[in-house]
Amino acid sequence: MHAVEVRDHIMIAHSFKGDVFGPAQALHGATFVIDVAFLAESLDANGIVIDIGRAHETLKAVLAPLNYKNLDELPEFAGQNTTTEVLTRHIFEQVAAAVRADELGRPAAEIASVRVTISESHVARAWYEAPIAA
Amino acid sequence: MHAVEVRDHIMIAHSFKGDVFGPAQALHGATFVIDVAFLAESLDANGIVIDIGRAHETLKAVLAPLNYKNLDELPEFAGQNTTTEVLTRHIFEQVAAAVRADELGRPAAEIASVRVTISESHVARAWYEAPIAA
Amino acid sequence: MHAVEVRDHIMIAHSFKGDVFGPAQALHGATFVIDVAFLAESLDANGIVIDIGRAHETLKAVLAPLNYKNLDELPEFAGQNTTTEVLTRHIFEQVAAAVRADELGRPAAEIASVRVTISESHVARAWYEAPIAA
Amino acid sequence: MHAVEVRDHIMIAHSFKGDVFGPAQALHGATFVIDVAFLAESLDANGIVIDIGRAHETLKAVLAPLNYKNLDELPEFAGQNTTTEVLTRHIFEQVAAAVRADELGRPAAEIASVRVTISESHVARAWYEAPIAA
Amino acid sequence: MHAVEVRDHIMIAHSFKGDVFGPAQALHGATFVIDVAFLAESLDANGIVIDIGRAHETLKAVLAPLNYKNLDELPEFAGQNTTTEVLTRHIFEQVAAAVRADELGRPAAEIASVRVTISESHVARAWYEAPIAA
Amino acid sequence: MHAVEVRDHIMIAHSFKGDVFGPAQALHGATFVIDVAFLAESLDANGIVIDIGRAHETLKAVLAPLNYKNLDELPEFAGQNTTTEVLTRHIFEQVAAAVRADELGRPAAEIASVRVTISESHVARAWYEAPIAA
Repeated sequence: MHAVEVRDHIMIAHSFKGDVFGPAQALHGATFVIDVAFLAESLDANGIVIDIGRAHETLKAVLAPLNYKNLDELPEFAGQNTTTEVLTRHIFEQVAAAVRADELGRPAAEIASVRVTISESHVARAWYEAPIAA
Repeated sequence: MHAVEVRDHIMIAHSFKGDVFGPAQALHGATFVIDVAFLAESLDANGIVIDIGRAHETLKAVLAPLNYKNLDELPEFAGQNTTTEVLTRHIFEQVAAAVRADELGRPAAEIASVRVTISESHVARAWYEAPIAA
Repeated sequence: MHAVEVRDHIMIAHSFKGDVFGPAQALHGATFVIDVAFLAESLDANGIVIDIGRAHETLKAVLAPLNYKNLDELPEFAGQNTTTEVLTRHIFEQVAAAVRADELGRPAAEIASVRVTISESHVARAWYEAPIAA
Repeated sequence: MHAVEVRDHIMIAHSFKGDVFGPAQALHGATFVIDVAFLAESLDANGIVIDIGRAHETLKAVLAPLNYKNLDELPEFAGQNTTTEVLTRHIFEQVAAAVRADELGRPAAEIASVRVTISESHVARAWYEAPIAA
Repeated sequence: MHAVEVRDHIMIAHSFKGDVFGPAQALHGATFVIDVAFLAESLDANGIVIDIGRAHETLKAVLAPLNYKNLDELPEFAGQNTTTEVLTRHIFEQVAAAVRADELGRPAAEIASVRVTISESHVARAWYEAPIAA
Repeated sequence: MHAVEVRDHIMIAHSFKGDVFGPAQALHGATFVIDVAFLAESLDANGIVIDIGRAHETLKAVLAPLNYKNLDELPEFAGQNTTTEVLTRHIFEQVAAAVRADELGRPAAEIASVRVTISESHVARAWYEAPIAA
């Protein structure tokens, strides 16, 4: 299996509901450094998994509505905690939609899966990986 | 698949038996930077894989008996080399036991697997991953 | 010149006032990974600049009132932007006060200066360094 | 599954053919930081996946013909782009051949797979992983 | 002293003249990860050393003529080796000129010095630091 | 001021004397990742601070007597704690002696100073910097 992975970041505010979160129930924030990996069984005729320039642009476009925001105020997250785990899934769904819409310049059928990793500090991170074919 | 990973470290002394180890047969030591990842098919009602605070505490508790020790003197490693690989397995077994005892605050049946990665320098690391269900 | 440096982190929310900040004028947040270095001309009788355990504890104590907070609501920052630069200075003042109060286990006169570095992402950081003797 | 991973690097020049590469169609270059992971179901009698010293030597030997070269001039890459993805596959094949020739000091049948990761910058990397048994 | 530092990168080809360079006398290349730090005695009224957005843009503009190029063909480097050290100085001069032309949004007199660090691999880097006031 | 820095590592055992060290009074160990920087006011005719190949070799030679050793048994450290700080100074003295003996391929008078940084974990490091001219 081949993979290509690109990195970007966002800086957001949010709060969590649930005793399990302790002091993180208060409004706080995070820098999320985000890696998105595209996995494919084979390379295309150019010798790539995907155009890395487009991968960077797609990630930036997906992150733009979140960057410099208070996630508590975004309708798409109403009623749920915007944990690092939830955000890996959210970003996956957005990136996967772009892949399925052939916006990455390669037929969606040739992309096996996508993995989104979010590093929230030097000692903690989360990731979500799933196939593109639903 | 979702995952959450936390990091901690230990500083230990040990020696190895076997010609393959060359100069590492002498008593030496290592800083082991340890990442433990918990993998789960789905998130819980709070939107998390596992309480990250408990994950950090569990890792710290597992590492405490090893930290600042000469591993050659610990009975649990008698008769075997405490290689980076062996230690990834040892830490996995301890963390997996905590998961199975429901000490991480989520039913063990909902944790698919655990992966332990040990970075021993800027140019070498090892990992061990296995399912929680035996 | 000798130095010892320790690392910790906080996760905070805040907003900025001033056109120069663009979208960062909105409420957002950051993970700040913080390194504090203690510089000294000579080592003490134990062969150290400072007790690294105490250095970690001092840093943690200084960061506690900021961690998981909306900095916009803290009285000590009223009327000023809590930029990365301002925070390096704030943390410096707190750590320097601890050094001057001999809380680090070494006479303040033997610590030449302190440097506080804050990494706000994988592509940006800030630092502040000043002598301990005012 | 166990794994051991070692790191080295090369500094090369090359150019790409294809509009998708934009400015990278011109002769340019890269530092490739390369991690090679060896995966095995079980450890050997010494408690290791593979001799880490031999792993480093094997990687260095595989990289030597590429290091400080213009890849456009190497016959083994004639007619194809030496993208990061293509190079992960090329290094995999060379390392896998060494494993299959028992040059790593452990029977090839006991090595499940090999993964080659190339970091080309702080924001982009690629990897290739495949079983050793063809 | 305060400082703010931003990061970007370029991918270039080049060769060196001189026996000291050994195999690096051949045409090869590098990814240079570049950090530029701006140092100032005091913060401005906004609480910053310099607008970090402009710092990123200035660095990108300075790097653009080098990125994806064979440095051997650039007239500005004729007759000299484009070593990592020479490039730190070259980038410094370009950034310093922008500072002196007040393009960073703060009077040049308030910027004490600039430091350019280039990481060429995970085991080697170079830097150049000098005052802005000539 | 120009600088070039190279990295290597050692894996050692040791113990400390003194209540301040707490559990580190027991025999334990560390991976020390060591960066040595050579600082110079000007570049030589080749456009370098120092031959980076020789810098790597010098560092490796200086580290060889320490690597895979129990530092408690080395006569050169008798009667003192081999703290990270003490080791930065020890390595500095060895590297400085090599510089003064013109083993780095550049006259000692042209090297202003040397800085040795030791990272002992992902959360702690120490450094020592001093002029070459005594």
